[in-house]
Amino acid sequence: MLGRVNHVAIAVPDLEAATASYRDTLGAAVSAPQSLPEHGVTVVFVKLPNTKIELLEPLGTDSPIAAFLAKNPSGGMHHICYEVDDILVARDRLTEKGARVLGSGEPKTGAHGKPVLFLHPKDFNGTLIELEQL
Amino acid sequence: MLGRVNHVAIAVPDLEAATASYRDTLGAAVSAPQSLPEHGVTVVFVKLPNTKIELLEPLGTDSPIAAFLAKNPSGGMHHICYEVDDILVARDRLTEKGARVLGSGEPKTGAHGKPVLFLHPKDFNGTLIELEQL
Repeated sequence: MLGRVNHVAIAVPDLEAATASYRDTLGAAVSAPQSLPEHGVTVVFVKLPNTKIELLEPLGTDSPIAAFLAKNPSGGMHHICYEVDDILVARDRLTEKGARVLGSGEPKTGAHGKPVLFLHPKDFNGTLIELEQL
Repeated sequence: MLGRVNHVAIAVPDLEAATASYRDTLGAAVSAPQSLPEHGVTVVFVKLPNTKIELLEPLGTDSPIAAFLAKNPSGGMHHICYEVDDILVARDRLTEKGARVLGSGEPKTGAHGKPVLFLHPKDFNGTLIELEQL
């Protein structure tokens, strides 16, 4: 069921500084920052040959990464996103196996404009998993 | 400088249960467990089309992931490993830019038998980065 790792998301308190680290210190290609007010983040993509890293900075007053950064003020790995062929098939399999899907259980439109779901970290060894249908 | 994401490592308190989650619930191909006493872990590889996840369980009394699991008893994302062409060139660039390499600064032989270095998480937004020369 799990396909490619679409991205690993890293929450950062200072997107400009984080972007400079990846670009100048680590020597990676980075995108311009994109503000996604409907998702409560500003994102920079770090482009790697086989996948990407997303650097996420909170945007607005109700950011989904605000609580994570309050707990981890320097930032940290926030979630990992896997691609799936059919998100409803994936959801039904997961709930049948007893895994918890966050929110209403209905896919939402993610930051890339595709249907996504998030799975409860307690069911997957403390790792927040996003599933995205391409 | 940064190449492919070689793997994302997830520390887990119970490797058998974690392996079952990825295999049976998430439907991924997983390897048999491999004990690596010289690295203080037992590892299971989750094989994905573009990279892999490594599930790590502590092995022995001096495991490098023991402190992480004491702080995160359910487990969590522990580090991300990027491939580099030349680890000494990478190290020299990083230290020149002010980033801290953990340990002596000399590459060690990693879990895949290749030279590796770890970078200080405080220099990279709370993310522990491993560099591996293929």
